[in-house]
Amino acid sequence: MALLQVAGIPSSLRKHAYSTGLLRAAQEVAPADMRIEILDISEFPLFNQDDEADPPGSVQVFKEKVRKADAVLFALNEHDFSVSAALKNALDWGARPDPDNVWKGKPAGIMSSSIGRIGGARAQYHLRQMFVWLNVFPINQPEVSVPFAPKGFDETGKLIDEQSRKFMTDHLTELARFTRQLQAKV
Amino acid sequence: MALLQVAGIPSSLRKHAYSTGLLRAAQEVAPADMRIEILDISEFPLFNQDDEADPPGSVQVFKEKVRKADAVLFALNEHDFSVSAALKNALDWGARPDPDNVWKGKPAGIMSSSIGRIGGARAQYHLRQMFVWLNVFPINQPEVSVPFAPKGFDETGKLIDEQSRKFMTDHLTELARFTRQLQAKV
Amino acid sequence: MALLQVAGIPSSLRKHAYSTGLLRAAQEVAPADMRIEILDISEFPLFNQDDEADPPGSVQVFKEKVRKADAVLFALNEHDFSVSAALKNALDWGARPDPDNVWKGKPAGIMSSSIGRIGGARAQYHLRQMFVWLNVFPINQPEVSVPFAPKGFDETGKLIDEQSRKFMTDHLTELARFTRQLQAKV
Amino acid sequence: MALLQVAGIPSSLRKHAYSTGLLRAAQEVAPADMRIEILDISEFPLFNQDDEADPPGSVQVFKEKVRKADAVLFALNEHDFSVSAALKNALDWGARPDPDNVWKGKPAGIMSSSIGRIGGARAQYHLRQMFVWLNVFPINQPEVSVPFAPKGFDETGKLIDEQSRKFMTDHLTELARFTRQLQAKV
Repeated sequence: MALLQVAGIPSSLRKHAYSTGLLRAAQEVAPADMRIEILDISEFPLFNQDDEADPPGSVQVFKEKVRKADAVLFALNEHDFSVSAALKNALDWGARPDPDNVWKGKPAGIMSSSIGRIGGARAQYHLRQMFVWLNVFPINQPEVSVPFAPKGFDETGKLIDEQSRKFMTDHLTELARFTRQLQAKV
Repeated sequence: MALLQVAGIPSSLRKHAYSTGLLRAAQEVAPADMRIEILDISEFPLFNQDDEADPPGSVQVFKEKVRKADAVLFALNEHDFSVSAALKNALDWGARPDPDNVWKGKPAGIMSSSIGRIGGARAQYHLRQMFVWLNVFPINQPEVSVPFAPKGFDETGKLIDEQSRKFMTDHLTELARFTRQLQAKV
Repeated sequence: MALLQVAGIPSSLRKHAYSTGLLRAAQEVAPADMRIEILDISEFPLFNQDDEADPPGSVQVFKEKVRKADAVLFALNEHDFSVSAALKNALDWGARPDPDNVWKGKPAGIMSSSIGRIGGARAQYHLRQMFVWLNVFPINQPEVSVPFAPKGFDETGKLIDEQSRKFMTDHLTELARFTRQLQAKV
Repeated sequence: MALLQVAGIPSSLRKHAYSTGLLRAAQEVAPADMRIEILDISEFPLFNQDDEADPPGSVQVFKEKVRKADAVLFALNEHDFSVSAALKNALDWGARPDPDNVWKGKPAGIMSSSIGRIGGARAQYHLRQMFVWLNVFPINQPEVSVPFAPKGFDETGKLIDEQSRKFMTDHLTELARFTRQLQAKV
């Protein structure tokens, strides 16, 4: 079977962001037939619809990588009970102009983390509503929302919470299965 | 190809409910390989977890029909900016007890209607959040939310709004495609 | 100062429901100037708009109690990532017919509990969206969502988790403050 | 009575943005005792928590204006079924660091517009969920969501849809009332 190429979408611009740590952990626990590339969303200007037809080079590179991916994997932090501005910005650039929505039809996985108990879950449901417009097909279970991030990650940013690693492993296995399913010949 | 058997889930107990009209219209415009049976949720008692292991006969019949369906099709009205109590009740009965969640893994379509301009769209996103737990896989587009129901339906309850019938036709075509896709051999 | 009369709205019909335990705990930790009466929503039929103008007696009693209350306090469980069918049913009966929406203008507090880690938080945000239509004014912080209910409550149904009792105390203090504020002469 | 100073928060960076048109219309129809200043969010860098303690000058000016306002008024566009990246960015900058959350306790009004029929309503409910964390107190009704923006605004960007202007007038009247109420001596 061909490898599944997955675009890993980070959320936080912090140097030691937990959401980036989620993506590195995903690279470690991914099934053998999955490759996850962590994309860079930090250099995009704020989305301005006046510029959508001629996006800056960093956005063009990003859109091309998403377009070529078999699936996308989002790593969320939660700011103000929703997704981060940086992630929303990457979503908006990727979706426009309409005929060039690179998210369209992609299978998707979602992971999140937060300092508190909820683990970023609120941001996940907002992202899922955006998927309806973007025409993304997310998997459902098991959900991956890592609570108490300062305990779940060590000082090098490695995800050490065993239960979270187990959920993540199962989530990525389901993402691989679902992606193959959506690619099957009917 | 085998026929696709779809369980049509109504929302309103009103005698002349628009949501039931949506399901009748869906039966008219469905692709040739799709059969939609409109289920009855009107006789269920309020869900009580103490009774989940031994549900009343009407619930058992309902659960068996959903279990056997290839896909489910929800017809929503919007009460208080969310789904109706009657629909929530049917969802809860169908999901419990956990190992016997009959919604699990089903592909789903969603239609809604309202008297006002929004067409019941708010209820759709609440339903989609429930799907994450229920492990239902909804399609995305085109969305079907019929506004101004007293104009969109005639006095016999028939959906006459042409644009809505077109969106519904495309939605059901996508549901058929997606259902076949999820049933394909990998 | 006059006592603040608060209508306590339960969610679950289970005999040993945690949501009812939340309301009993609220009665214990409420400020001295607040009285919480736990209302009964278990006997209502499924809401049917055809019957809204002439609701059954149990609904009429309920609506009258809500109407007279200075504020309302919701105790949620989470079913399928949203509010319970029983609560949605009580909300719909209370809201209809439109000129007789008894929720209108009420200040509100929200508490929830769940067996898992999230503590019913997802149901809270769905309820808040319903409040926009119902024209209810909820307080924000601190949120009360009691996780791991089998540990947080003892075998008699008493809330014993100290942190949750503290959040609940602060939530009710804020509800009292906010209710007085909305009643102040301008 | 003292004038109510309202911070008008735009959403779109487009030169001819409808959301900015909403704010200009609000300035026209606001009650006599309300002044709305339209703030600038276009020059902020993407929010990075590493920089929150020392935000750029444009953010500092913005935060100071919000802090001094009696109320805030949001004008939304809808991108990908949620608020714009630019608005989310302004919200995040304004909220951090936590002890310096300038949104805290503010009464708020919400307006939105979209090219289609829904009028940006989906973005409004996402914003309301953010308000729970931000500790903002929004009014409920009447909601202002202007559909079919290319018809609702003329070519100079002036809101000409009469029903929308009426809803906006009533919304701002309610915002003034609610703001006075929250400022009343208890």
